Amino acid sequence: MEGEELTHLVTRIVLQLCIILVAAKVAGEISQRYLKIPSVLGELGAGIIIGPFALGGVEIGSLGPIFEATAHIETNPIAVIPTELWVIAQIASIVLLFTVGLETDLKQFFKFAGPATAVAIGGVLLPFSLGAGATVLLGYADDFTDPVALFMGAIMTATSVGITARVLSDLNRMGSPEGVTIIGAAVVDDVLGILVLAVVVGMAETGSVSIGEIGEVAGKAVGFWIILTGVMILGAGLITRVLRWFNGVGTALVLVLALALLGGGLAETFGLAMIIGAYSVGLGLSGTSLPRIIEENLMGVYHFMVPIFFVVMGMLVDVSSMGGVLGFGAVITALAIVSKLVGSGVPALAVGFNRRGAWRVGLGMLPRGEVALIIAGIGLSRGVIDQDVFGVAIMMTIVTTVIAPVLLVPAFKDGKSGRKHPIAAEASEAPPLGSQPDPTSD
Amino acid sequence: MEGEELTHLVTRIVLQLCIILVAAKVAGEISQRYLKIPSVLGELGAGIIIGPFALGGVEIGSLGPIFEATAHIETNPIAVIPTELWVIAQIASIVLLFTVGLETDLKQFFKFAGPATAVAIGGVLLPFSLGAGATVLLGYADDFTDPVALFMGAIMTATSVGITARVLSDLNRMGSPEGVTIIGAAVVDDVLGILVLAVVVGMAETGSVSIGEIGEVAGKAVGFWIILTGVMILGAGLITRVLRWFNGVGTALVLVLALALLGGGLAETFGLAMIIGAYSVGLGLSGTSLPRIIEENLMGVYHFMVPIFFVVMGMLVDVSSMGGVLGFGAVITALAIVSKLVGSGVPALAVGFNRRGAWRVGLGMLPRGEVALIIAGIGLSRGVIDQDVFGVAIMMTIVTTVIAPVLLVPAFKDGKSGRKHPIAAEASEAPPLGSQPDPTSD
Repeated sequence: MEGEELTHLVTRIVLQLCIILVAAKVAGEISQRYLKIPSVLGELGAGIIIGPFALGGVEIGSLGPIFEATAHIETNPIAVIPTELWVIAQIASIVLLFTVGLETDLKQFFKFAGPATAVAIGGVLLPFSLGAGATVLLGYADDFTDPVALFMGAIMTATSVGITARVLSDLNRMGSPEGVTIIGAAVVDDVLGILVLAVVVGMAETGSVSIGEIGEVAGKAVGFWIILTGVMILGAGLITRVLRWFNGVGTALVLVLALALLGGGLAETFGLAMIIGAYSVGLGLSGTSLPRIIEENLMGVYHFMVPIFFVVMGMLVDVSSMGGVLGFGAVITALAIVSKLVGSGVPALAVGFNRRGAWRVGLGMLPRGEVALIIAGIGLSRGVIDQDVFGVAIMMTIVTTVIAPVLLVPAFKDGKSGRKHPIAAEASEAPPLGSQPDPTSD
Repeated sequence: MEGEELTHLVTRIVLQLCIILVAAKVAGEISQRYLKIPSVLGELGAGIIIGPFALGGVEIGSLGPIFEATAHIETNPIAVIPTELWVIAQIASIVLLFTVGLETDLKQFFKFAGPATAVAIGGVLLPFSLGAGATVLLGYADDFTDPVALFMGAIMTATSVGITARVLSDLNRMGSPEGVTIIGAAVVDDVLGILVLAVVVGMAETGSVSIGEIGEVAGKAVGFWIILTGVMILGAGLITRVLRWFNGVGTALVLVLALALLGGGLAETFGLAMIIGAYSVGLGLSGTSLPRIIEENLMGVYHFMVPIFFVVMGMLVDVSSMGGVLGFGAVITALAIVSKLVGSGVPALAVGFNRRGAWRVGLGMLPRGEVALIIAGIGLSRGVIDQDVFGVAIMMTIVTTVIAPVLLVPAFKDGKSGRKHPIAAEASEAPPLGSQPDPTSD
């Protein structure tokens, strides 16, 4: 590429980024303020509107369209996005999942692992089975081993820790038995979803499906995840000591982000998704003093980068072509709601919640949020799922993410206990932070 | 690009970014702590070391080199950097110059405009003439109108506000007559340098040099700069009111950065450099409450992005090919030092400083810092200057930026007045912030 051409490319991307950021923030604000829905949905909608399949594709005099939808779109739908923008969006997804990992309470994570795991397993198995099954039954995949069916199943298993935590925090019920169980289950769900993703990606690549190979892929995924997370948790103290050698908060932020990039790159090199590595790095460091130290600075990077990811995701949606899959979308969306309510609610009944509590837990697990979008984006970029199925995933994500907050508020409003045998005050509240010594913090 | 190929590209860029960030911070820390030089020099050096012409170009088994130095290097030296990385570096330079503009004290800027302008004009004219002249005399350009001579002249005019301000602040002499004059002159120098750059870029593009055309390019540059800066200063109040409609600091940060990207993109579209627009946007908003509000968040983006720019700049330097231009580099470096000391020092004598004061002012104007690198990068990316001249610019920047802090400390140490007629206490200290009503703040 010649210098002049490169300068024009840079100018183009800079102006595209400007439009993306403004659209994200305006749509996010309108969503929160007037539509009373999470701003992430507004960002997604903004991407659909300004994307190459809508306004962005319109010719503006001699300037041409702002986002062109021409290059290689037949062979690869991701090609509608300039690679420079795509790379930035991918780095944004690393920042996002690293932050989610970093904000996880490692002590709560281990303490409420039991009931949460039961809720999470049910909330993964049923949605996966129904999602993959419906994809086969409606003729979008040949059988259960078809990568399209596997990806739709994987997308259905997601739970968005961010949105659930945000709503419970707004309701001031983060410390209730339901709250703690939901957050714990959402975290376990994330890990399980990540493993499901690893298995699905591995199977989509090799194309084969023997139990031995599933075991191998799962073993490789679990093995890498356990080793990386273990190294991070055990090494967290050493890492914070090394970082203390450096001057300044900015340096700590940058080195920790570099670690997240490394984790992501390594995960991808080992055949897993980048976000797996980024999440593990964040989780490993969550028990240290780092999250508090770098918080303000990290939020700047987060605010700047993360909306780019969601807008770019929205830009991949071709609404005009979604008419043909409206029926499929409606079925998948309905199954997504029912499968989480039943899949997570029934195990909740089994671990001591009454029906009111089980309903709350099931609702809390509903929103698919960014996790489903990331999995769908991986499927699309690898050419495993096409734009129709991607559109269906977006539709399902939007509906589940909108209705969960709407239904959670009345479900918690009566203030009655959700336990079969209402328990003592100390059990209904989460233990105060720092009540146990943590070997990984310093 | 197929999905699989794209995934590998993303992984590659992610790992390259990780290496860049770690190298930047380690080298920056070593520079500050052991070498006692500004960390920006360490970042530059890190880029040279890990770049495609040094360690980065070494084959690592089957992985190949981390930074390849093969593609189209004959026709365009920038081609050694993947375009995705180059775009990120350019966005980083927008963030940097926007921040410099935002941190400018608009009131001081207008109040000390007189003496500072005299110092700045001398500090631009002499370095430009000597730089361009030496380039012609040593045979690297045909005549004064050769774009190579013009670019070398433009690179010589730069003064780094950041480094000068940082050193004066460390010495606690920011409010001294010399300090206020240096900072003011550095700001005017930035504006002049930006105009020189605009003229040079315009002349390099059209290739012609009639006085009428110089006037036209200068008029266009000054016109665009005055209109953009004027609109930003006058519109700053309105912008802060619009931003107040949005919730949260993060949104303000992102929208203000979007404005900087827009300013940069517009400047480029009008034939100027992107950094001109980004600086004007920052300068226009500097008088409002915004810098204080977004500071912490902006610093996160700054720490994450800006080192990428300096490391990438360093990666463009081919040290092995610099042997042939060592003589040229030594001449340019010596002229860079003398021309600033004389060019800024003599006008300082004329506006009331004694020889001690003029020496201090001249030293304060020495470091070329990031401004010279940005101009050199623009010249290289447009194919106007080649890697030899770029290497000379880097050499000159490194030397001037290293010796300025080293010489400034003893120059200020005796504590004696640098004025011919030592003036009353209120004049020797900068007025306290907020001592005058500011129509643009709210």
